[in-house]
Amino acid sequence: MRATIIHGPGDIRVEDRDYPSVQLPTDVVVKVTASCVCGSDLWPYRGSRPTRRPSAIGHEFIGVVESTGADVTQLNAGDFVIAPFVVSCGECQQCRNGVTVACARLAGWGGRDDSGINIDGGQGEAVRVPLAESTLVKVPLTGEPDDALRKNLLTLSDVMATGHHAALSAQVSAGRTVVVVGDGAVGLCAVLAARRLGAERIIAMSRHADRQAIAREFGATDIVEERGDDGVAKVRELLGGVLADSVLECVGTKEAMDQALHAVRPGGALGFVGAPTGGAEISLGHLFSKNITVAGGMAPARTYIPELLDDVLAGRINPGRVFDVEMPLEEAAEAYKAMDERRAIKVLLRP
Amino acid sequence: MRATIIHGPGDIRVEDRDYPSVQLPTDVVVKVTASCVCGSDLWPYRGSRPTRRPSAIGHEFIGVVESTGADVTQLNAGDFVIAPFVVSCGECQQCRNGVTVACARLAGWGGRDDSGINIDGGQGEAVRVPLAESTLVKVPLTGEPDDALRKNLLTLSDVMATGHHAALSAQVSAGRTVVVVGDGAVGLCAVLAARRLGAERIIAMSRHADRQAIAREFGATDIVEERGDDGVAKVRELLGGVLADSVLECVGTKEAMDQALHAVRPGGALGFVGAPTGGAEISLGHLFSKNITVAGGMAPARTYIPELLDDVLAGRINPGRVFDVEMPLEEAAEAYKAMDERRAIKVLLRP
Repeated sequence: MRATIIHGPGDIRVEDRDYPSVQLPTDVVVKVTASCVCGSDLWPYRGSRPTRRPSAIGHEFIGVVESTGADVTQLNAGDFVIAPFVVSCGECQQCRNGVTVACARLAGWGGRDDSGINIDGGQGEAVRVPLAESTLVKVPLTGEPDDALRKNLLTLSDVMATGHHAALSAQVSAGRTVVVVGDGAVGLCAVLAARRLGAERIIAMSRHADRQAIAREFGATDIVEERGDDGVAKVRELLGGVLADSVLECVGTKEAMDQALHAVRPGGALGFVGAPTGGAEISLGHLFSKNITVAGGMAPARTYIPELLDDVLAGRINPGRVFDVEMPLEEAAEAYKAMDERRAIKVLLRP
Repeated sequence: MRATIIHGPGDIRVEDRDYPSVQLPTDVVVKVTASCVCGSDLWPYRGSRPTRRPSAIGHEFIGVVESTGADVTQLNAGDFVIAPFVVSCGECQQCRNGVTVACARLAGWGGRDDSGINIDGGQGEAVRVPLAESTLVKVPLTGEPDDALRKNLLTLSDVMATGHHAALSAQVSAGRTVVVVGDGAVGLCAVLAARRLGAERIIAMSRHADRQAIAREFGATDIVEERGDDGVAKVRELLGGVLADSVLECVGTKEAMDQALHAVRPGGALGFVGAPTGGAEISLGHLFSKNITVAGGMAPARTYIPELLDDVLAGRINPGRVFDVEMPLEEAAEAYKAMDERRAIKVLLRP
């Protein structure tokens, strides 16, 4: 089969690999119908995370079950499934707590499972899925999903689940005022998640007209183009002299985190889902003096997918709008380039 | 009148001051029936916070209204009242959000109000209370409170409200497992607050037999004497191999915060109410990788007093047990010494 392999910074190739097969009784093999490039895939692409050996890449995909291991009873060949961005067992204390990203048997696409067996990356034609029943979410479909639905389902793998995590971490609920820092696919999904949870006012911080348009479509009531102190001043002005109840940080840089922190009202909450770069620290004194809550991390997508899926299938949310470019899998290198140069918000890859 | 004045590190004197009178139409004068020494009073006493000029000190007191300003209609002479540890207006956006400690007109006992007029300290015979109706909480009493009730009411000024804030910040609720770091009056009240909110398992970290006894009386199910990594290992052992859902940090040192952070399970919450000393920082990477929520700060005591008062008056909680020493006001210097040397958990002062 064809699969996307990263060889080093800036070096993405689509190569031949063995077609996967069931290795363990809890495995299934999924034929990928769509995958995509994540902002976090750009870390090794940009060299900010090392690539020690050529590795299969991609952790967001949807597809159809092709074959199943002997212990798999809840999934059958032909089932349409969504893969969250990590593998989880569903049975350990962390999974029972809903924190599937801290699973005792956690494994990542393109890595190895806890038996030491390789797992395929998501940006390829097929994937062996370990712990398949607890990892995958089956989608109750009749017939083939159309293009829009396919995109919506694919966002549940990561970006929509991550935006939802930002919103929950920032305690968004009905009537709250919200600021979203970051206008990538996650930031845009965070806007949508905040609206879905009933936020009254949603201020998206963005300087790009195309992203602003999607933010508005997703429920942003206001756009702020200014950054730093000017951005915070603008938020305060829009909110009638006070800061936001909830701020969602969806970037991961120190600048974004500082801006986010200073946009939170006393007693408000900051949800952060941008992986902190460069060992960032936060002042406890600032949190203490303002009574600010900070929460976030990797989204437990597996926990969130069922409720988000209900809304997708009912047509209440359309997160798939974040895909502005679609390419054949063979053009994965160009997909990375377009994301890296911010020519694309998010690229969908068709195997 | 007699009032406690701090002149510098280790220098506490009880001196004569003018008896207060109503200065503004929203003032009342309260005759203090009991006050006490707070752990945070020890900061200037120990010189870790500067004392630039002799200042009235003390921010926890209960008493009886003696006289009222022209605009005061909800309080009358003879009313028994609890003073939260700061003055708040009840009308600004922060007060409406319940974050009275961030009030736009915030003022502290022993400081000045927003008209620049001096406010008496709580460790004295009487206090002019600015913004009296929004600051004070009236206690519906028939007759004089007995000794036990007086102590219970006095804890609502600060330590019980602060313990409750730690518990709320750490998301304590029915069935959660809890660790409390710190066995001072606030730590002990945090144990009581956690039990009140329905925690299933409460582990108090304490090395002092007298404090352990109160912790158990307040609802601690387990005591851990070990500190650092050993303490965390013991918590994990007690909880069957996992860490705590909620950890309440009630000290404020780096060591206590580190211990607290490492006792939180992935996806759990840390509530901190010990004012951070020495510009402490916290690693965002650690929070992100474990999905840990951090919240806390100064407790909005004014917001919490009514519900805690209901429980005190109904006899459901007895936080006054934290007062293990009682002294006449004239012995305030000895009270500070006893607290500083940890010979007393908390000293009540009788004017």
